[in-house]
Amino acid sequence: MVRQRRYAILGTGAIGGYYGGLLQKSGIEVHFFLRSDFDHVRRHGLRVDSVNGDFLLPNVHAHRSTDTMPPCDVIVVALKTTANYLLAESLPPLLKKESVVVMMQNGLGVEEIAAAVPGVRCVLGALCFICSNKIGPGHVRHLDYGSFTLGEHTGSLGGRDTSGALTTVAEDFKAAGVNVHLTDTLAEARWKKLVWNIPYNGLSVVLNATTDLLMHKEGSRQLVKRLMEEVLEGAAACGHTIEGSFITKMIEATESMAPYRPSMKIDFDEGRPMELEAIYGIPLSRTRSHGVALPTVQTLYEELRFLDAGSL
Amino acid sequence: MVRQRRYAILGTGAIGGYYGGLLQKSGIEVHFFLRSDFDHVRRHGLRVDSVNGDFLLPNVHAHRSTDTMPPCDVIVVALKTTANYLLAESLPPLLKKESVVVMMQNGLGVEEIAAAVPGVRCVLGALCFICSNKIGPGHVRHLDYGSFTLGEHTGSLGGRDTSGALTTVAEDFKAAGVNVHLTDTLAEARWKKLVWNIPYNGLSVVLNATTDLLMHKEGSRQLVKRLMEEVLEGAAACGHTIEGSFITKMIEATESMAPYRPSMKIDFDEGRPMELEAIYGIPLSRTRSHGVALPTVQTLYEELRFLDAGSL
Repeated sequence: MVRQRRYAILGTGAIGGYYGGLLQKSGIEVHFFLRSDFDHVRRHGLRVDSVNGDFLLPNVHAHRSTDTMPPCDVIVVALKTTANYLLAESLPPLLKKESVVVMMQNGLGVEEIAAAVPGVRCVLGALCFICSNKIGPGHVRHLDYGSFTLGEHTGSLGGRDTSGALTTVAEDFKAAGVNVHLTDTLAEARWKKLVWNIPYNGLSVVLNATTDLLMHKEGSRQLVKRLMEEVLEGAAACGHTIEGSFITKMIEATESMAPYRPSMKIDFDEGRPMELEAIYGIPLSRTRSHGVALPTVQTLYEELRFLDAGSL
Repeated sequence: MVRQRRYAILGTGAIGGYYGGLLQKSGIEVHFFLRSDFDHVRRHGLRVDSVNGDFLLPNVHAHRSTDTMPPCDVIVVALKTTANYLLAESLPPLLKKESVVVMMQNGLGVEEIAAAVPGVRCVLGALCFICSNKIGPGHVRHLDYGSFTLGEHTGSLGGRDTSGALTTVAEDFKAAGVNVHLTDTLAEARWKKLVWNIPYNGLSVVLNATTDLLMHKEGSRQLVKRLMEEVLEGAAACGHTIEGSFITKMIEATESMAPYRPSMKIDFDEGRPMELEAIYGIPLSRTRSHGVALPTVQTLYEELRFLDAGSL
């Protein structure tokens, strides 16, 4: 890739706004794709209130469509997975021959969606460990953590060597002050993240509870544990061994957290669609294709489908 | 039993108030055990608004404790199962040598509770098919149906022949205008009733929905069906074969019903404890004792335990 890389951020919310803001602050040219916040950000810029120090970027390259954006070296997709249908049209105008697409999203099957877009040749995946919220138009509050795990998508790009892209992207984020962990097993890392996301996101919606209550009551504690065990079964069926001790670690980490409202609960409370396919539907169908049923996860998935805005 | 039988009704709500009212109206001496409605019923009597004709019983034998009640030939227990802890103290003052206890409740394991009370020698079970609600103190509204299925409890009473009691109790209710079906397989009838109660009661609470919505949406339809299938597996594990066609029948019957709020949902909405053990906990533990897991039922049970008022 070129020395001075140009970035696109698709989805300028709690994740995209935070990391994109840090990149621009570090001196990188960043182009932001926005929808509802476009007017506000074009006029007032992007604001990040962070535990590491607040900052305002009064002038950002804000775009309402990717058609007005220049081709970019790195395209960070920080949309909700429910908006990934946009990628087929939004990615092509941004692509150069060597563009790298970074899928900064939860769940499974997200790199595949980018890889299927004509012209996309290099896809990475990023798993963020961060507490941040969008608290107003162009206004992100960063509460805690902030690292992410970055790995190559090796599924459907024909064995192309993308390790150069991996280290280059990691360097840019490190220079912007972000702690980046590289992984050579992205698929396993995605399953590990599901060990947390599958129980806490769904139960917080169905039981209308924050993480502390879910850990406090006996019925939900047992559910959390069994859901995690099933995620490990699902991972194993798909070829990824996660140690049982990882469950204990996740439960203890959650118990020591401040009461937390997971992102799916926030989406639900605000009437937005929930990321059900990436976090539940695709893990379930992949596991099922290996002949393994995850009945507790399946039940939670169907309850969430019932509750999802606009679901049939 | 004696020619002129004296009845006790424990729990004068939507069920006990309706059937007890009909018995008294037919000329039988009935003693009502009440708690919150005692003062009102003693002063104003018992009122039933029924699709079959409204009636008021201005004078009823109302009791705040079974200590003031005379021994009775037939003791109908129409309490919520969550109040069955009262029976150890409330039944003994009512018992004669030949008293019959009729457990008019949902779920499993309810006859066993009566049978374990010292002095109880004959226990029947009744499963009501009725839409009725208590709409005020001593005031029942009967909306539809009204029959019940009556059978002998053969579990723990040492093979005593209770068939005489069965027909006698049935005759009294028939004389009062109630359609009574006799069954010689009470345990199987209880499992069959669970085929409806387990999905619709629990899902209506967890998903905050009436029966029509549960049938309308795809996620919940699949859940209803799988819950019913698991109840059949549970019944089979416990020795009761229920045909798969029974599921179709229950689903079609529910689809043709007016939108309905199941009793557990009413209990939940009004802050009362839910009948979780009789409808979920005991069926699950009996099934488990035969080495069979019902993971979807188990999940729903644990979610309900989380939501239950005052649960730990």
